Amino acid sequence: MKRLVLKFGGSSVGTIDKIKKVANIVKKKVSEGNQIIVVVSAMEGVTNDLKKKSDLISKDFDNKELDVLLSSGEQVSCSLLSGALLNLGIKARSWLGWQVPIITNTNHTSSQIMKIKTEEILDFISNKGVAVIAGFQGISKEIRITTLGRGGSDLSAVAIAKFFKTDSCEIYTDVEGVLTTDPAINKNAKKIDKISYEEMLEMSSLGAKVMQPNAVQASMIDNIPIHVKSTFSEKSGTKIISESDIDHKNAVTGVAYAKNNAKVSIVGVVDKPGVAADVFEPLGKNNINIDMVIQNTSLDGKKANITFTIKREDLDKTLDLIEKDKEKLNYNKITHDDKLAKVSIIGAGMISNPGVTYKMFRSLADEKINILAISTSEIKISVLIKEDLTQKAVKTLHKTFGLN
Amino acid sequence: MKRLVLKFGGSSVGTIDKIKKVANIVKKKVSEGNQIIVVVSAMEGVTNDLKKKSDLISKDFDNKELDVLLSSGEQVSCSLLSGALLNLGIKARSWLGWQVPIITNTNHTSSQIMKIKTEEILDFISNKGVAVIAGFQGISKEIRITTLGRGGSDLSAVAIAKFFKTDSCEIYTDVEGVLTTDPAINKNAKKIDKISYEEMLEMSSLGAKVMQPNAVQASMIDNIPIHVKSTFSEKSGTKIISESDIDHKNAVTGVAYAKNNAKVSIVGVVDKPGVAADVFEPLGKNNINIDMVIQNTSLDGKKANITFTIKREDLDKTLDLIEKDKEKLNYNKITHDDKLAKVSIIGAGMISNPGVTYKMFRSLADEKINILAISTSEIKISVLIKEDLTQKAVKTLHKTFGLN
Repeated sequence: MKRLVLKFGGSSVGTIDKIKKVANIVKKKVSEGNQIIVVVSAMEGVTNDLKKKSDLISKDFDNKELDVLLSSGEQVSCSLLSGALLNLGIKARSWLGWQVPIITNTNHTSSQIMKIKTEEILDFISNKGVAVIAGFQGISKEIRITTLGRGGSDLSAVAIAKFFKTDSCEIYTDVEGVLTTDPAINKNAKKIDKISYEEMLEMSSLGAKVMQPNAVQASMIDNIPIHVKSTFSEKSGTKIISESDIDHKNAVTGVAYAKNNAKVSIVGVVDKPGVAADVFEPLGKNNINIDMVIQNTSLDGKKANITFTIKREDLDKTLDLIEKDKEKLNYNKITHDDKLAKVSIIGAGMISNPGVTYKMFRSLADEKINILAISTSEIKISVLIKEDLTQKAVKTLHKTFGLN
Repeated sequence: MKRLVLKFGGSSVGTIDKIKKVANIVKKKVSEGNQIIVVVSAMEGVTNDLKKKSDLISKDFDNKELDVLLSSGEQVSCSLLSGALLNLGIKARSWLGWQVPIITNTNHTSSQIMKIKTEEILDFISNKGVAVIAGFQGISKEIRITTLGRGGSDLSAVAIAKFFKTDSCEIYTDVEGVLTTDPAINKNAKKIDKISYEEMLEMSSLGAKVMQPNAVQASMIDNIPIHVKSTFSEKSGTKIISESDIDHKNAVTGVAYAKNNAKVSIVGVVDKPGVAADVFEPLGKNNINIDMVIQNTSLDGKKANITFTIKREDLDKTLDLIEKDKEKLNYNKITHDDKLAKVSIIGAGMISNPGVTYKMFRSLADEKINILAISTSEIKISVLIKEDLTQKAVKTLHKTFGLN
């Protein structure tokens, strides 16, 4: 007998038929003698629809009320799934975040889970009941509903796996696991059997959508093994586990990309200590995430150019903020390009494989793809390129590093 | 300064624009210096959509989970309205049933409110905050979400008016008040300024849709004056108050109707004590509501005919049950007619106006409308007629009793 967390994403519970399908997967796990806790996301599209409604009232819609609004999505899916299980003759019950309770801090719309009470649910699952917990939501000490932000249901599943000391945390989704790259732009994408937390963290941060980075990070911190599987096939999926449990055959595990990048260059700022801080402080205060940064000194050593990348959606705000500070920053001009993409290769194996960097750049050069910026870590190399070359770049890198 | 409950129905919060409109009505009441508690229904159509989802899983969907599901509708509307109020610069906060808490019994899908805790919300509204409470929902002592059944948000409003000792309970809807009859079938329908609880109870029981009978009954029991008004006009609406506060000029206050009635006749049952109980017991146990009943004895005194009316939707089940009991009931045959309507005149004034009954029957006879069954109470007379004559009957009665 094992204790399992099964998490079903929005695409897995997107229709009533899919909810029935999920109920049957759960039934099978029950019949195998397991103790089951299910975590569900809102039905596909629901959270976005609710968000749109709040936007129609105000773009500055109150965060606390937004959490009340958005949490209704998981309330619907978890009651429907509980009802479907009961209909199959399985003892089941829904728990909303406040009922468990899943206690979070008061950081509305992106709360952190502090504690999960386990007694009531442990009692229920010990007596052959399936606990169906609404993902994405919790309750603050002020007895207000909170939500965990993007990827929140994955975070719920990982935290539940931790507090309930489960043997496994299975993340069900609409793909068969973590793939070497996006099959939508490269049909040679292949499923990865095992991937380390660190690699998965880079993959998801750099564009792979199967699991949100903060959920991967949470599983890494508490060493919770994750098993990503398809709701709609019996295939074995991908295990996200410790680096030490993986035998890397390839230098590169996957190729990720993110479109909708923009690059801003501030040309001719005075090259003195603190200038970078002066540029980035107002951006940080306005929640604009800076990704890559390049600082070039001019030949005479007195003026510098600062180039950085951001999400395209933040471009207008960024340009406004920098123009407002023109006097203080004392630069010559700003240039920008908003049709860029970041393509990355990820692999823990590259630590012990020198030459990966060279091979990547050569492979792109052979395809006449110009590199506009580079950023690296121990287990990934990202390059900024023109957006319309994304597919070409992904395909050539996927082939170069033996992933086809 | 007054303390008010303002209840907005589904049609009043059916779109984001309407929610903004409601926020402005609330804002005006706040600016007049009142303490405000708002009760909201789910956005129009939402509860039915959720119910349909549960039906697609199973017609026998679990009641406890159904309450979790359905209560999400009011969660959405009350957070949206709270957000809209905050956006207008008004201090506001949503309270879900479990947060107030509104404590009910465990009779899921049609729970009764036992108690409402008032301290937290009294403190909030005393400090110029608008409390926005989700209607229709509560929490049981088992810490499960409950709902109050049809018309539940009206019931919530009445109970809140009672427990918070408010000066007024205003029910906002999409019509300008209680009308003498349905304007959809008689354009001469006029708004009633004042109506007694008893009359309103009959009107709503007999087909008027503006307020649910159980909510009217609750207001009658605790003598809570109700003010039904339109969300979309400034007109004065209808006051539902004690009979003693009304000066009846007319014998008849309104004409109501309900289509989709069916009549069943059991012909030739043995005329002995207990036969009616034998007929109706299995129907009652299967939640089939019997409305009118007529029992005729045959000429020889040995056989009787029992005729009764039910909702058309219950006809098949009713016929099945009676046929199953054929041996026990020992009847000759069953006949039925499923295209019938019940038309009623209601008025506390008819107590002191003899001749109303005669006048009603004559008026229908003049229009060649055949009466198939009659039922009366002190303040109403209902007749069963062919469904396709409904409009004709309503129009003639409306005119006969001086309501045009």
